[in-house]
Amino acid sequence: MTNPLRIAIAGLGTVGVGVIRILVSHQQMIAARAGRPVEIVAVSASNRGRQRGVDISGYDWVDNALDFAARDDIDIIVELIGGSDGVAHALARQSLGRGKPFVTANKALIAHHGMELARIAEEQNIGLRFEAAVAGGIPIIKSLGEGLTANRLTRLYGILNGTTNYILTQMEATARDYGEILEETKLLGYLEADPSLDLDGIDAGHKLAILSMVAFGVNINFDAIYMEGIRRIKLVDIDYARELGYRIKLLGLASLSAAGLEQRVHPCLVPDSAPIAHVDDGVNAVVVDGDAVGRTFYEGRGAGEGPTASAVVADIIDIARGHHGPAFFVPAQGMQKVNLISISDRVGPYYIRLHVEEQPGVIADIAAALRDKDVSLHVMLQKGSEQDGSVYVVMVTHDTREQKLMDAMDQINALSSVIDKPLAIRIENL
Amino acid sequence: MTNPLRIAIAGLGTVGVGVIRILVSHQQMIAARAGRPVEIVAVSASNRGRQRGVDISGYDWVDNALDFAARDDIDIIVELIGGSDGVAHALARQSLGRGKPFVTANKALIAHHGMELARIAEEQNIGLRFEAAVAGGIPIIKSLGEGLTANRLTRLYGILNGTTNYILTQMEATARDYGEILEETKLLGYLEADPSLDLDGIDAGHKLAILSMVAFGVNINFDAIYMEGIRRIKLVDIDYARELGYRIKLLGLASLSAAGLEQRVHPCLVPDSAPIAHVDDGVNAVVVDGDAVGRTFYEGRGAGEGPTASAVVADIIDIARGHHGPAFFVPAQGMQKVNLISISDRVGPYYIRLHVEEQPGVIADIAAALRDKDVSLHVMLQKGSEQDGSVYVVMVTHDTREQKLMDAMDQINALSSVIDKPLAIRIENL
Repeated sequence: MTNPLRIAIAGLGTVGVGVIRILVSHQQMIAARAGRPVEIVAVSASNRGRQRGVDISGYDWVDNALDFAARDDIDIIVELIGGSDGVAHALARQSLGRGKPFVTANKALIAHHGMELARIAEEQNIGLRFEAAVAGGIPIIKSLGEGLTANRLTRLYGILNGTTNYILTQMEATARDYGEILEETKLLGYLEADPSLDLDGIDAGHKLAILSMVAFGVNINFDAIYMEGIRRIKLVDIDYARELGYRIKLLGLASLSAAGLEQRVHPCLVPDSAPIAHVDDGVNAVVVDGDAVGRTFYEGRGAGEGPTASAVVADIIDIARGHHGPAFFVPAQGMQKVNLISISDRVGPYYIRLHVEEQPGVIADIAAALRDKDVSLHVMLQKGSEQDGSVYVVMVTHDTREQKLMDAMDQINALSSVIDKPLAIRIENL
Repeated sequence: MTNPLRIAIAGLGTVGVGVIRILVSHQQMIAARAGRPVEIVAVSASNRGRQRGVDISGYDWVDNALDFAARDDIDIIVELIGGSDGVAHALARQSLGRGKPFVTANKALIAHHGMELARIAEEQNIGLRFEAAVAGGIPIIKSLGEGLTANRLTRLYGILNGTTNYILTQMEATARDYGEILEETKLLGYLEADPSLDLDGIDAGHKLAILSMVAFGVNINFDAIYMEGIRRIKLVDIDYARELGYRIKLLGLASLSAAGLEQRVHPCLVPDSAPIAHVDDGVNAVVVDGDAVGRTFYEGRGAGEGPTASAVVADIIDIARGHHGPAFFVPAQGMQKVNLISISDRVGPYYIRLHVEEQPGVIADIAAALRDKDVSLHVMLQKGSEQDGSVYVVMVTHDTREQKLMDAMDQINALSSVIDKPLAIRIENL
């Protein structure tokens, strides 16, 4: 047996504790699989005294994780602190800059600084790995970058945020509205410290950016990704979608064609017949289209101690095995920026939900606004009135260019009989 | 750019042609991903003159593929001949023995001789890769051996043979019986040259053996795997299963516990609510349970030119990237034989279909036979009679040990009023 691989862990939250649990409980199994023992040498976290349910007394405690980078007795640094900047970013730079492989579960870090870090790792010819950053339970980075590497990948989409998928699933399962389920989700501790990351689609956007870089080998500008969350989805939308043969899912979608790169995160109506429509609660799923392989589908738990720690330890073992190619599977200097397709150029059908006063001429005004923008209707549903005399009107359009639809929506929103801001949800007939 | 990786291809059937197509059409992309150009140097097949739809005039033609092993201008040998023995086996031994990495899509070869070949590859410290041998469109070997390597894997199961899944799906979709669909499947060219490989579950058995070796790190005796095919499934079974809330799928199932290793291939009734119940036609799917990751699910096309060639080329690129760990991801010498659990020790519910003469006392006799063996019934269905006065009786048992069920079935089969041999199908409430 060769020398042990000595690791340092920065961040001892749920995932850090999970990594320690796996490395300790599966020590022998991992040594056999990695070809050498994997040993934890040092740990760092913000609070030394906190009860964590694992014994860390055998590891060197370090107050400042940045000290790891300079130590000769550490072979790999594992970063589980989180955040796109601050300590995580500094630690990544210093670790890689000093020739130490770097393993992270930090999607914000890779989405924002992945290219910079990949270049440093390649200069040093060492590993930068982040399987745990996207859908921990699914080895999707490895599948894209290695398993499907013979393919020109053309499109991928998936449920990338377990929290919002949990909220949408619970709304449907319990017939309760968004606000109520959101409160429950907070109490369960499922939300990120900054809830906007989950609820506004930013977390899913981070993951989509990473998947796009790996799948397409292109340089991503994170800020250019269209991101829209689930805050405006009401129970009435879930019910109407169901009636129309759809379910509502927050998807991240990316495709690369001659026209350019499309990247967007938003709620979608997906047909009930699509496998992804039945991925519920905290489960993640990714669908990938390749030119040789056709369509492939991957599903697993997206977050939590076990799945995320599983991915972190897989990356550690990969490095122990000597796998240290480029972070995005092609040299970073070859990753070009490509033309971005604007969301306003999306063409497809839309679900529209209007909340209006029940009075003569309302529908005529709405229909006129749609007609003026060349938006043609496929379905219109209106059922009874609310107690206050208002009504919900739901429409499904034929294929239309998004800009036209949004112009029509603005015109509709200006009508005096329209109560709430109208909501449009993109229909993706996957 | 470093020196090209020079490959030789033995076997130019559908998959061989697919590999050439990918390597030629994606030359630049593959060079970027592999870190070096990949060049085809030589090819070999049984018929030089055959029209294949790809230009092979630029490659050295070799009549005897075994000559590849001795050539200094070949870095990797790709075997796409097939068959567990003969040329394929000899080529594998010689290629590996002379220190040349070996990539194959040959499931029979790996199921029967994987351990022997893995030992040779490890002695030489070179790659032996067979991602294409199991579910070409799904990078399942890599997912098990690398992506999920931090987990103690406890169970896996899947639809591993596309042809039988196609037959079962078509029987249900078109309400036609087995024989008719089988003829159609033959005409479509979907059957292996030896149809028994598909229809009797042997092909699925080969794939299950390989998955077990990779997932559990154990040494498999292929001949000890229980394999039962789909030849006895009738349309009436598919219809009754549907009525009971199930669909019929040919599954390969393997699990490893303190009690030992369970490995079996047979038709199953799976609940309509299970995702695998909706994997139709030529698609493959694999479900894997790991102790950290929980349940993960993988789906993709199982066979055909594109998916299989995609997996072969992924293995070639992996080798070009310098990944050459043990074939089964742990040293072959550490892979032990484990206690095998006999199929007669399976405990679970069963679907039983009887075809009997409609006369007084038949059901009483059958019920008595089941009672004598402690098999208790959960459901019994009998609906009208066939034109000849016979009737189909369908029963669902409570959990029972297989040996008892089979003893009861023998006793029932001996009754004079029983027309066809009764059929029992295992119910797997996945």
